[in-house]
Amino acid sequence: MARNSSRRTELADAAITVLAAEGARGLTHRAVDRQAGVPAGTTSNYFRSRAALLEGLVGRIGERLAPEPEVLASLAADPPDRASYLRHLRDIARRLLRDRDVTLAWFELRLEAARRPEVGALMERVLVAGFAGDVAYNEAAGLPGGAREIALFHYAMDGLVLDRLTVSIDPATDVDDVVATLVDRLLP
Amino acid sequence: MARNSSRRTELADAAITVLAAEGARGLTHRAVDRQAGVPAGTTSNYFRSRAALLEGLVGRIGERLAPEPEVLASLAADPPDRASYLRHLRDIARRLLRDRDVTLAWFELRLEAARRPEVGALMERVLVAGFAGDVAYNEAAGLPGGAREIALFHYAMDGLVLDRLTVSIDPATDVDDVVATLVDRLLP
Repeated sequence: MARNSSRRTELADAAITVLAAEGARGLTHRAVDRQAGVPAGTTSNYFRSRAALLEGLVGRIGERLAPEPEVLASLAADPPDRASYLRHLRDIARRLLRDRDVTLAWFELRLEAARRPEVGALMERVLVAGFAGDVAYNEAAGLPGGAREIALFHYAMDGLVLDRLTVSIDPATDVDDVVATLVDRLLP
Repeated sequence: MARNSSRRTELADAAITVLAAEGARGLTHRAVDRQAGVPAGTTSNYFRSRAALLEGLVGRIGERLAPEPEVLASLAADPPDRASYLRHLRDIARRLLRDRDVTLAWFELRLEAARRPEVGALMERVLVAGFAGDVAYNEAAGLPGGAREIALFHYAMDGLVLDRLTVSIDPATDVDDVVATLVDRLLP
């Protein structure tokens, strides 16, 4: 069972690499087999359909982007003020930028969501739950910023990360400085 | 000559449709021929290489996203205050959202820029020139917002448009209202 689960993870990681490198059209079970260096048919055994493969891949992206428990504990120990919110957002930017493939694969899935209704339904579940979770987190922690601000931060952070992972209009400005300006100005 | 130019435009439009529907990997000269309903080989006659096709496509995206002259004249007639800047940004959002294919193709190219250095070089020229143009426009018009704010607006508007064209975390909030909040808060 543990073995199965580590093989699933390995295949989902290979799928992330394929998606980032080749786009959604390049993501096939066979391409994942090749990327993972496993016998043809292995990915199909673990993920029976394209929908299952995408769902496994989305779950794995979530794991790879998740905050480390010790970072989360350290953030939770701060008083819930604007400075703490800034530290939260800088940590989000750090996680989104540290591994290009994961975040580029995520953007690929967002575009694929516009093309394929079944991907749209999967991404809607994940994005809407994530947004609701962010709003609930801020409220429970007493952090500044409600649903309105959190939506604005999502937009600005997505655009910033897309800029920094692809072609930047302003590469000289440090990401931490951009995030500080956003917190300064977008929080009421 | 006029005929050639209209055929080029028609093929570039077909390339936009293919790119939005199939992603960068699906964009081939033959796929553009099929999409445009022209004999095989036609796109290759007009755009000799993939680089030429991408350059034609990027130029055509620029034309299709450009403001209408009468809108631009009307905006330029306003006093250059925060309200005018809001009208400018709402017009940008309107243009980016009115034709899904054009803007989705643009996002595809941004991701492709992260994968292929030659696409990266093309997109860098266009994005950096566009950003410099925006900063110069604001300065010449006396509009509020310098390079720092314009970069922030680029990030936030890109994220907002990506959200609205794919899967939205907050579909109930009107885009014009989001843009108004951004202008309220991001301008110093």
